[in-house]
Amino acid sequence: MTEEQGRKRRAGGRAGMKERAGTAAIDQMPWRRVENSDRPTEPLDADGVAALHRGAMRILSEIGIEMLNPEAITILKQAGCLVNGTNVRFDEAFVMEMLGHAPGPFNVTPRNPERMITMGGKSMVFGAVASPPNAWDLERGKRSGDFTSFQEFVKLSQYFNCIHINGGYPVEPVDIHASVRHLDCLQELLTQTDKVVHAYSLGTERIEDAMEMVRLAGGLSHSEFEAAPRMFTNINSVSPLKHDHPMLDGAMRMARRGQPVVVTPFTLAGAMAPVTMAGAVALSLAEALSAIALLQYIKPGCPVMIGTFTSNVDMRTGAPAFGTPEYMRATQMTGQMARFYGLPMRSSGVCAGNVPDAQAMWETCNSLWAGVQSGSHMIFHAAGWLEGGLIASPEKFVMDCEVLQMMQRYFEQPTWATTDDDIALDAIREVGAGGHYFGCAHTQARYSTAFYAPFVSDWRNYEAWQQDGAVWTAERAHRLYKQILAEFEAPAMDHVAQEELARFVAKRKQEGGAPTDF
Amino acid sequence: MTEEQGRKRRAGGRAGMKERAGTAAIDQMPWRRVENSDRPTEPLDADGVAALHRGAMRILSEIGIEMLNPEAITILKQAGCLVNGTNVRFDEAFVMEMLGHAPGPFNVTPRNPERMITMGGKSMVFGAVASPPNAWDLERGKRSGDFTSFQEFVKLSQYFNCIHINGGYPVEPVDIHASVRHLDCLQELLTQTDKVVHAYSLGTERIEDAMEMVRLAGGLSHSEFEAAPRMFTNINSVSPLKHDHPMLDGAMRMARRGQPVVVTPFTLAGAMAPVTMAGAVALSLAEALSAIALLQYIKPGCPVMIGTFTSNVDMRTGAPAFGTPEYMRATQMTGQMARFYGLPMRSSGVCAGNVPDAQAMWETCNSLWAGVQSGSHMIFHAAGWLEGGLIASPEKFVMDCEVLQMMQRYFEQPTWATTDDDIALDAIREVGAGGHYFGCAHTQARYSTAFYAPFVSDWRNYEAWQQDGAVWTAERAHRLYKQILAEFEAPAMDHVAQEELARFVAKRKQEGGAPTDF
Repeated sequence: MTEEQGRKRRAGGRAGMKERAGTAAIDQMPWRRVENSDRPTEPLDADGVAALHRGAMRILSEIGIEMLNPEAITILKQAGCLVNGTNVRFDEAFVMEMLGHAPGPFNVTPRNPERMITMGGKSMVFGAVASPPNAWDLERGKRSGDFTSFQEFVKLSQYFNCIHINGGYPVEPVDIHASVRHLDCLQELLTQTDKVVHAYSLGTERIEDAMEMVRLAGGLSHSEFEAAPRMFTNINSVSPLKHDHPMLDGAMRMARRGQPVVVTPFTLAGAMAPVTMAGAVALSLAEALSAIALLQYIKPGCPVMIGTFTSNVDMRTGAPAFGTPEYMRATQMTGQMARFYGLPMRSSGVCAGNVPDAQAMWETCNSLWAGVQSGSHMIFHAAGWLEGGLIASPEKFVMDCEVLQMMQRYFEQPTWATTDDDIALDAIREVGAGGHYFGCAHTQARYSTAFYAPFVSDWRNYEAWQQDGAVWTAERAHRLYKQILAEFEAPAMDHVAQEELARFVAKRKQEGGAPTDF
Repeated sequence: MTEEQGRKRRAGGRAGMKERAGTAAIDQMPWRRVENSDRPTEPLDADGVAALHRGAMRILSEIGIEMLNPEAITILKQAGCLVNGTNVRFDEAFVMEMLGHAPGPFNVTPRNPERMITMGGKSMVFGAVASPPNAWDLERGKRSGDFTSFQEFVKLSQYFNCIHINGGYPVEPVDIHASVRHLDCLQELLTQTDKVVHAYSLGTERIEDAMEMVRLAGGLSHSEFEAAPRMFTNINSVSPLKHDHPMLDGAMRMARRGQPVVVTPFTLAGAMAPVTMAGAVALSLAEALSAIALLQYIKPGCPVMIGTFTSNVDMRTGAPAFGTPEYMRATQMTGQMARFYGLPMRSSGVCAGNVPDAQAMWETCNSLWAGVQSGSHMIFHAAGWLEGGLIASPEKFVMDCEVLQMMQRYFEQPTWATTDDDIALDAIREVGAGGHYFGCAHTQARYSTAFYAPFVSDWRNYEAWQQDGAVWTAERAHRLYKQILAEFEAPAMDHVAQEELARFVAKRKQEGGAPTDF
């Protein structure tokens, strides 16, 4: 292998980082498609998988799900489901037939086709934090989300190459009226980022506006838009056992136009779900599969994913806990079931910690490793999440991106390659006993790209770190996020598309936006 | 299942914690044997395993290892190895024949037989931090290790049930003269803890004193002591390609008396080892196997383990980095090779962070999960390690124990059980759509033990946390460690054994202890 090839091959190392664009604030890894090559961790044996499947099917067929959407009810009645008021019972044969229509891996292509991502297979996609009502940082403390903070997080989402998608609104800008918030937010996301965007299924107008804005931003005709996934929505059931009107409405509208729907029940064991993890997972599966079956009946083959957000409460306070052992096992079990049903899967990078400290990171690491172990294809909230999702923090965002980059490097094949060049017998012979490898040719040819190079971690010894001000990680992350914002440059965008988007937003605002009485 | 059985079964939950001894400072999990039921993560395919094996064997047979111990040289010459000065070449047939003698899993029994641990099989054992020359805490900052700090860490090691063994000196008490340090330290470890102790192989006198002290503390005859493993030593090679005199001497003395030896090369890729991870692992394997082959020749069937301490340097500063992606893959690869050779394995819970903050914890979590993924049987330095091993910190110790407890809970089968009781169909039916599970009988019968209950994590919301002083995790850990020390009670010990131990220490001090000119 020549040095040139060696450099190419070790794209995660330092020189690889220098090669690509970005500002000078940090030396980050290039945008890449991540492949999770690890065999999943599977706590369940075949009997366990069968038991969870049987549990989910019995919930669907014996107890049923409340579908609070008349259109969905009508469709499911027509499909042969047993409807009683808003309660719908699904038999196993119907559910499994509908799941048979669901596609395997699918691509989602935003306005910049180079930011295309794959959902499914070995692909692993990381999304920024979504939906916290509050922001927090070291300087300003906790405060309600506003559009200024929203804009900051959008820049971070675009800036970091390890973030593949916008998960939603990285913080809720409550200073913008709810009737037009989606217009301002999506305009910002579609112009300040060129990555896949998410649309909230919060009523007909919002989801239709979002689809139209994605279409305009991409300069697409209606048929081009519908020809392939361009965006996605994530809907949550109202656990236990309920899907609400706007979520189902949005999901059905997206599915009809070939846009991906992720169905993620939030089954918190001990609160909205049984106190036993298998019970919480079975409930989650039933809720998710009911919506997925509906969508596959409406548009067979439409792109769908199953999401998991099963965790447990703190029994002392009732507060949700994240990154717990129970969370990890629930995520792994859901991974096994997603493979059993042939569905791509979403999980999350979450924690209960209130500030970007040690606890927040051990909980987040547990969540993220559960994502890897479960074979999750999309990790939501992978950067910036605090306080069980009530806070978005820029320091946490920066820290999480370091962890995500390390995971990306972890999946680079050179870290476990065993060619003769890797075994390095000649170098071992050359250096001999008691020598040092730094000077040898084998090292010199590779050192610049051999190892992961951090941007917020400080690997110096204590004295060097102390002399440089003894700055703890949260503070270093704070400084970095400010540098990143200062140097941010929006991605290129077609001017016509930009103007069409602005015109649409102006028109819809004039019309009053979306109703807010939902 | 009755509620009684349920409680028993969920021993990791809150009620399980209340059942056992311990002070009131925290509500910790009981002492238990941990079984790692996860299938290991194996980056190497069969060709990769063969390539690493071939690499290690070629290092041993073509390059050889410097064995800086005349006795070892004589023995290896007699064994048929090719000796050239201090260089010894081992052929594959000899090494594999010797490895064939190594036992599978073995037990180590300290003076309190209830603290017996198993090395090998599915067993997973966590040890406290070992050997930092410095201590650091939030109040006193960084300072040289002294006996006062040593005593504090020994108390923490004994206090936490999730710590199974003393890894060595949790901090080096440099205020005690090196000639007698081992006597004071071991006396403290053997009286203030009842867990397995480690002895440093630093010269004949020290290792012989240590064995005698373990024998006396256990009230054992010489033949009883030698009949089973009672303690262990960990030796490091002087990478690259060298074993020094005192380490080999200590290892041989321990092996002859049936006491376990862990051989852990420290192959830092780019410094003492090739810059490529497979090269660093191959070198580590060769160094470890050379010593293990020697020990199995001397005493076939003596208990041995292979250790890994392969990581990479920071190419900017030359400082060792830990918990990196490269570290994780090296650990996983070593795990595959340990299984290939049929040897129990040791890895570590390590980080480069200088203070107990976010970075320290994401690095430590990476290391610990690599320990799980690799199927490691003993995790050294699992609590209290900072600054690449140059600092022991009580705050980090407390935090790490939370993470270790979560891992222990992660391995409790109830977290993935799928009995009908776990699937909880009746409860799901009873609560119905939109209800809440907290009040239902299924929850009430289980809630007190259903989930992991933390002791240093704060799962309250931001406002409750803020009202309580907005205390970050490191500070909470600091407060806890002080409470633990204040309430510490030494474990029971036979008075005769205690006196015999004291008499031995006094005698050996009078004799001048151990030479310090090594």
